[in-house]
Amino acid sequence: MTIKTGIVGAAGFAGIELVRLLGEHPSFEVGVVTSDSLAGTPVSDLYPALDGHTDLVFEKHGVDALEGCDAVFLAVPHTAAMSQVPALLEAGISVFDLSADYRLKDAAVYKRWYATEHTSPELLEKAAFGLPELFASELARAAAEREAGAAALVACAGCYPTATSLAAYPAIHAGLVDGTVIVDAVSGVTGAGKKATERTHFCFANESIEAYGVGTHRHTPEIEQILGLEGKVVFTPHLAPLNRGILSTVYLPLSAEHAGETSLEAIRDLYTEFYAEDAFVRVLPLGTMPKTGSVAGSNACHIGLALSAAGDMLIAVGAIDNLCKGAAGQAVQCANIVFGLPETTGLTAPALPV
Amino acid sequence: MTIKTGIVGAAGFAGIELVRLLGEHPSFEVGVVTSDSLAGTPVSDLYPALDGHTDLVFEKHGVDALEGCDAVFLAVPHTAAMSQVPALLEAGISVFDLSADYRLKDAAVYKRWYATEHTSPELLEKAAFGLPELFASELARAAAEREAGAAALVACAGCYPTATSLAAYPAIHAGLVDGTVIVDAVSGVTGAGKKATERTHFCFANESIEAYGVGTHRHTPEIEQILGLEGKVVFTPHLAPLNRGILSTVYLPLSAEHAGETSLEAIRDLYTEFYAEDAFVRVLPLGTMPKTGSVAGSNACHIGLALSAAGDMLIAVGAIDNLCKGAAGQAVQCANIVFGLPETTGLTAPALPV
Amino acid sequence: MTIKTGIVGAAGFAGIELVRLLGEHPSFEVGVVTSDSLAGTPVSDLYPALDGHTDLVFEKHGVDALEGCDAVFLAVPHTAAMSQVPALLEAGISVFDLSADYRLKDAAVYKRWYATEHTSPELLEKAAFGLPELFASELARAAAEREAGAAALVACAGCYPTATSLAAYPAIHAGLVDGTVIVDAVSGVTGAGKKATERTHFCFANESIEAYGVGTHRHTPEIEQILGLEGKVVFTPHLAPLNRGILSTVYLPLSAEHAGETSLEAIRDLYTEFYAEDAFVRVLPLGTMPKTGSVAGSNACHIGLALSAAGDMLIAVGAIDNLCKGAAGQAVQCANIVFGLPETTGLTAPALPV
Amino acid sequence: MTIKTGIVGAAGFAGIELVRLLGEHPSFEVGVVTSDSLAGTPVSDLYPALDGHTDLVFEKHGVDALEGCDAVFLAVPHTAAMSQVPALLEAGISVFDLSADYRLKDAAVYKRWYATEHTSPELLEKAAFGLPELFASELARAAAEREAGAAALVACAGCYPTATSLAAYPAIHAGLVDGTVIVDAVSGVTGAGKKATERTHFCFANESIEAYGVGTHRHTPEIEQILGLEGKVVFTPHLAPLNRGILSTVYLPLSAEHAGETSLEAIRDLYTEFYAEDAFVRVLPLGTMPKTGSVAGSNACHIGLALSAAGDMLIAVGAIDNLCKGAAGQAVQCANIVFGLPETTGLTAPALPV
Repeated sequence: MTIKTGIVGAAGFAGIELVRLLGEHPSFEVGVVTSDSLAGTPVSDLYPALDGHTDLVFEKHGVDALEGCDAVFLAVPHTAAMSQVPALLEAGISVFDLSADYRLKDAAVYKRWYATEHTSPELLEKAAFGLPELFASELARAAAEREAGAAALVACAGCYPTATSLAAYPAIHAGLVDGTVIVDAVSGVTGAGKKATERTHFCFANESIEAYGVGTHRHTPEIEQILGLEGKVVFTPHLAPLNRGILSTVYLPLSAEHAGETSLEAIRDLYTEFYAEDAFVRVLPLGTMPKTGSVAGSNACHIGLALSAAGDMLIAVGAIDNLCKGAAGQAVQCANIVFGLPETTGLTAPALPV
Repeated sequence: MTIKTGIVGAAGFAGIELVRLLGEHPSFEVGVVTSDSLAGTPVSDLYPALDGHTDLVFEKHGVDALEGCDAVFLAVPHTAAMSQVPALLEAGISVFDLSADYRLKDAAVYKRWYATEHTSPELLEKAAFGLPELFASELARAAAEREAGAAALVACAGCYPTATSLAAYPAIHAGLVDGTVIVDAVSGVTGAGKKATERTHFCFANESIEAYGVGTHRHTPEIEQILGLEGKVVFTPHLAPLNRGILSTVYLPLSAEHAGETSLEAIRDLYTEFYAEDAFVRVLPLGTMPKTGSVAGSNACHIGLALSAAGDMLIAVGAIDNLCKGAAGQAVQCANIVFGLPETTGLTAPALPV
Repeated sequence: MTIKTGIVGAAGFAGIELVRLLGEHPSFEVGVVTSDSLAGTPVSDLYPALDGHTDLVFEKHGVDALEGCDAVFLAVPHTAAMSQVPALLEAGISVFDLSADYRLKDAAVYKRWYATEHTSPELLEKAAFGLPELFASELARAAAEREAGAAALVACAGCYPTATSLAAYPAIHAGLVDGTVIVDAVSGVTGAGKKATERTHFCFANESIEAYGVGTHRHTPEIEQILGLEGKVVFTPHLAPLNRGILSTVYLPLSAEHAGETSLEAIRDLYTEFYAEDAFVRVLPLGTMPKTGSVAGSNACHIGLALSAAGDMLIAVGAIDNLCKGAAGQAVQCANIVFGLPETTGLTAPALPV
Repeated sequence: MTIKTGIVGAAGFAGIELVRLLGEHPSFEVGVVTSDSLAGTPVSDLYPALDGHTDLVFEKHGVDALEGCDAVFLAVPHTAAMSQVPALLEAGISVFDLSADYRLKDAAVYKRWYATEHTSPELLEKAAFGLPELFASELARAAAEREAGAAALVACAGCYPTATSLAAYPAIHAGLVDGTVIVDAVSGVTGAGKKATERTHFCFANESIEAYGVGTHRHTPEIEQILGLEGKVVFTPHLAPLNRGILSTVYLPLSAEHAGETSLEAIRDLYTEFYAEDAFVRVLPLGTMPKTGSVAGSNACHIGLALSAAGDMLIAVGAIDNLCKGAAGQAVQCANIVFGLPETTGLTAPALPV
């Protein structure tokens, strides 16, 4: 099977990661990559790593350019995505949206956090939430829709929500948790995007750690929605001097019933069982904590577990590559599912060991 | 005034930072630097940055070597410190201990966390806690003792406890906080010490973030003691790829009375007032968060404040240089106080702006 | 075809890169990985990036462990290799040696630079030099030997010699160069090996550049041999704060006939033609210079060309990943050739674009 | 003595380093800092490291703003400097120009390399070359001019020329060298300036080394002028992932008379003697090579020396902080001399040892 594929916003960091991953994929064949500001530039001029691996040239955005595609990946900012999705679906093209536009199921919550009226709220229900390990049934539904001849829409999960939710969900799902959940996460600088700013300047980002968006980051309601914890998540992102990687340390207060009662071994067993069928998630041995360096460039998620000294709080730490499992890799994983391929197709390469 | 000074464990990272700082200090004159493993090596052979700044040569440890000193700084591991302190005090030498040995006031707590019987518990009460912004009176007492002819003992606060407590204390002291306090902190690799290990290998530490000591880090009881929150602190340290710096993000649940009632402006005013006389602490404008890069190499602590979206949790972020305000700089600040000098003497240089 | 494969010294940086690459290879099947100091440890415990990708456990070194192998890769220090090679060959196992032991054709030169008597000089002639783009016929001979039932021996080129020679060879081969050739190269810290030392300590390597082995580095005679410039190469390696990558800047004085006469365009054409059939080498457009980041994790070599202002010196810059094209990748490339596979098998993944 | 001082272009990296250094200086008192694009912004808002160290606010450029100054430091791009210098001198203000505008003594050479007609060539002779260790007499003349009531003009040496020339000059001056001199240098990213560009983006600069400006860099004629080697210098700069530091590796072919005849010990003695009176230059012991990390943040220059294996080439390696000894520190050193202060005033702090 050859799936004709377009990537919109391909010059950005998530976009070019899609180009990389799909360039190695046996079924998706990328024929169109768009970038308004770089139209006419060969991809490999901008990203010499791909020299010899692609002859694609960036084209202008536009639905016309994508005609004939079976699948389109949108790696554009929020609002830019929802301005294109309805037309793409109407043209029968399945859409894998890496933006936030179709993630929040409630248009009012979207409006509150993104300060914009949603322009196609009728599609929010249709959109499958793109985090396969936790929302398999939504993706199965999307796959069935596509199989039946309709275009699918997948709202791929954000980077912080992915790392956080994979670390936190099994405990919450098992009813172990009660109370406010604190999410303290650190991202590499690719998370700040390709735009050259003072914040992404080497000399300001290097040799420094900082918190940002404290109390206001837009991934907060997404995490709350995934975990079913509306209004109960406090999320603080940080920036650290590395390219790729998110480490999310999640503080999960155990309910009275479990605090001091449920052992860490039991909790780890629960996690291991929960993810038994999930090729990309590794629950580490007790006593081991994940390192983002061990997942960089791969679609893996490593999870480490510990209890607080008092035994009343579970500390679950998740590590992913924000551009891969946190963006492009996850989108490909979703697309594999929607197109009836094994979920791991094209995503099996490990991180560099060092 | 010339204060004859020795540094024990001077070859380690905190030790050499003491050499650097005291080398620029107008009153402390370092005559002895010890290192068992490097005895005979000129300091500037090991640390070429000090070439031309010091002619000191590392000597073997031993109280004899320190005879004639007025002040000794101990930059040795825990237990190694308490094996030397009583003899030094007896010799009339004031001691500034950078280890953990005299920080915890309760020898039983020490034993529980350090798995060692304390060998001079009778000195725990004498030891002034070396965190001047929060324990001024203890240092004033030590200064008075020294003035009266006795040797003083200062147990300088640890790096994580310093960043954390400076960020958290004013809110707790004002009675705003109720509940478990979560401390999520990130350190540069100097915090892992000078010993070459797999953990400090460039290729393993670079391009990665990791959590460590989750639920078990020995700075937990120290933070609890400082904040008066026995058993109520959950502390998770992380390692990030930079040399110097600690960023501590502290989650302080507001008491029912204050949650949603006390404004962030009011809390910032409280912090500003609390630190009004403290030259090294800067409470940043609202909307601004500290960066460790802005304090590296200096004795400054920058504090940023925010509220959670729900308004019921204060997020206080503190940034320090772990080797300076978190170790050597703080020890010098304490020594200034004990020897009756202005607290900022020799500590006024700012961080590199970039 | 399944080629039974062993990796000796698999716990080191080149060794584990072999594990990574061969783990994705369709024909080589790694059954044995050895490491004396880590025997009994699962590979993925030491390198969590490979968790879920390999179940191999490090075993003790020894020819016995390798019985039944068709191919063995030696990723051990010099002298350790030559102590094992004769027995392996005798056992009918083809050997891909990543050490320096069989690179220098003259045992006297080996002795001079490695301060050791060569213990199997009779094999020096047999050894094919493992730099396929420049020594295709030697590798063809080794392939023919293996095809005929004998064990092949390939002495894979060193990291600096590979980057340097690929950049310099076409100009020298075309007779453009006359005079002393200066090679100024910079390596990432993986080049210093896995051993934790003061030199590889994050805090000493980070935020610093240094030269080392000036005038004495053992890759000098290897470069001279490849380029046919005995006694005419001055080579200075440097260490820079990154994990992977070598950038070699080579200064090639043009002969009187060519200085100011032969255009850069003509020289670039010559390079392009020289490497026309070589999938891994890219000669960049004029005005562009290679970045090591564009080849990290891949087997690519990027080459940039410029002339000095006076027009009498060619400056050829080569970039490779020292662990991949400079070690493990190149060894796999050689093994592909020797076992009759397409040279690029298992080596086609590009570098991360960012 | 209080010297009223202005800094033009103070928001850039060299400018803010001047603010840092002069903020600690006992005699220069900075009253004006200018930045067209940031006028109205407090210095410490842009550079939080200086929070608590300066209350200065950036002002618009303009000679008016500088009225009443005794000294002005120009940290602006070339051509922007020469547009202001004549008026400043006329106003009796001594000028320390960090740009290239008055470095080249020959306006024709300036025009060739900078593609601009020099607008005040009559001042080129007046301008003292600001590299005190090599041009003491020019600075003495400038000091005498100022002492006599005239305004002095100092054209501070560039960063690469400083590191390179300090490493190369003594050998050339002693007549040891004959032939083309190759300069291969690596800079940290502060050398690329404060402007946020793709080149200075963390994710593109990090984990990579690259050459740039090969054969065309404008520091080439400056190095040639300093060393008296017109047309005989080949200079290649590189960019490496660190903030501060230049390492320049200089290849100096020994003349027939000296090649193989003059020992490295003798050459080192010559260097040591040459720099005997220079507080900032350290000639390292043989066998030791400089690291940029050992000079970062300081005004020091470390020099290492080695011979090629063949003994016919001296390899001299110089390390400086490009922003300090390579820019702001050197300007302050020159200003100290011109204003009759000890040359080291305000410049004695060592680099951080780690």
